[in-house]
Amino acid sequence: MNPTDWREAAEDLMAEYADLIDSDRLEAWLDLFAEESVYQVLTRENFDQNLPAALILCTNKNMLRDRVMSLRNANEYNLHYDRHLISNVRIAAGESGILSLKANYAVYQTTFEGQTTLFSVGRYEDKVRLESGRLLFVEKTVIVDTFSVPSLLATPL
Amino acid sequence: MNPTDWREAAEDLMAEYADLIDSDRLEAWLDLFAEESVYQVLTRENFDQNLPAALILCTNKNMLRDRVMSLRNANEYNLHYDRHLISNVRIAAGESGILSLKANYAVYQTTFEGQTTLFSVGRYEDKVRLESGRLLFVEKTVIVDTFSVPSLLATPL
Amino acid sequence: MNPTDWREAAEDLMAEYADLIDSDRLEAWLDLFAEESVYQVLTRENFDQNLPAALILCTNKNMLRDRVMSLRNANEYNLHYDRHLISNVRIAAGESGILSLKANYAVYQTTFEGQTTLFSVGRYEDKVRLESGRLLFVEKTVIVDTFSVPSLLATPL
Repeated sequence: MNPTDWREAAEDLMAEYADLIDSDRLEAWLDLFAEESVYQVLTRENFDQNLPAALILCTNKNMLRDRVMSLRNANEYNLHYDRHLISNVRIAAGESGILSLKANYAVYQTTFEGQTTLFSVGRYEDKVRLESGRLLFVEKTVIVDTFSVPSLLATPL
Repeated sequence: MNPTDWREAAEDLMAEYADLIDSDRLEAWLDLFAEESVYQVLTRENFDQNLPAALILCTNKNMLRDRVMSLRNANEYNLHYDRHLISNVRIAAGESGILSLKANYAVYQTTFEGQTTLFSVGRYEDKVRLESGRLLFVEKTVIVDTFSVPSLLATPL
Repeated sequence: MNPTDWREAAEDLMAEYADLIDSDRLEAWLDLFAEESVYQVLTRENFDQNLPAALILCTNKNMLRDRVMSLRNANEYNLHYDRHLISNVRIAAGESGILSLKANYAVYQTTFEGQTTLFSVGRYEDKVRLESGRLLFVEKTVIVDTFSVPSLLATPL
């Protein structure tokens, strides 16, 4: 692929990532991750100071599957809709077939009564790889600015 | 046009759509619609359940023209500025010259005293067509997450 | 460069602009400006009415350097993190090697306790030029919708 194709594939991946969470299709969302992938949510402070304490840490895809399954079983979590705005997507670097992506996000949550509040802002620092013609996450790191949120550990960011 | 050109044209259309509403040039905004176009605003719930009840429904461009004219005559509506952030624009499908676009949006409103609040988040599911070298909406469907907003029916989303 | 390359370069510049402010690397942020550049922040009203009163006006890069230095010396300003979402980036026009860019932005601020609020929404109307293979701002005009913000004059928008 040429640089423009990579760029478009990266933007499509981000858009699909957002769409699958926002429409609560978390099982299809799992398909965006490679089998040996890492998904983690860190506060900005811990990321900057290189501290290991993550808010969420899944070091392989089975952990991520378990997480989705437990969300499905715990009905009380899903009392809202999510809406992701992902912007400033860019390819930071690429080597040995792994591409580093960066982006900023804002996530809004809306209650079933139609009231919307800002839930979280932050950024993504991801690594993706081409597998069978599509980009998959091998590492998804969500670095949250916002962390004073009690329900932070519900749906993925 | 090649896929990259379509993509860029779609992003430009969305940016122009936002710009024309935000700068209150609603007459020029009308020019983004084909003559036989549909503009509708639906809640997420009604869209998901395939319920016909729309918050706004214009089934042709004359209805949309009337809407803009009535906004112009009812001065009280325009006590704010709009600001659209449209992200995650993507081409979902294309067939027989009609392209399906998806995007997420957040709209902020600012009073004349300079105070800004989040007004609405949601998504677009649009159909566009190339006419005389430019993309026009043949269908613009705004699916709102936020619906507990009294002034929802003022300026377009 | 062809139109797609320009477009991608413009989007990268915006993403880098956001990233350098959000990560508090303001000295590197200065490098995005040409030596004879203008940086200004105006309210929407003043911009529309062509009034000269700017909230911030730096008519050359030394003024901008001074501004960054005074922010560094006045520690009290930096009691928050910034997060920029820049969307609807587009090339409005290009002539004699100068490109006009437009974009919308939302800036969120997060306290060190992790609480996030919307800080400012508005738009950019910029002029950029290719110098030694990279795009630099020769004019950055931030037109704010939001102006009822006491701390507006802290970090750049």
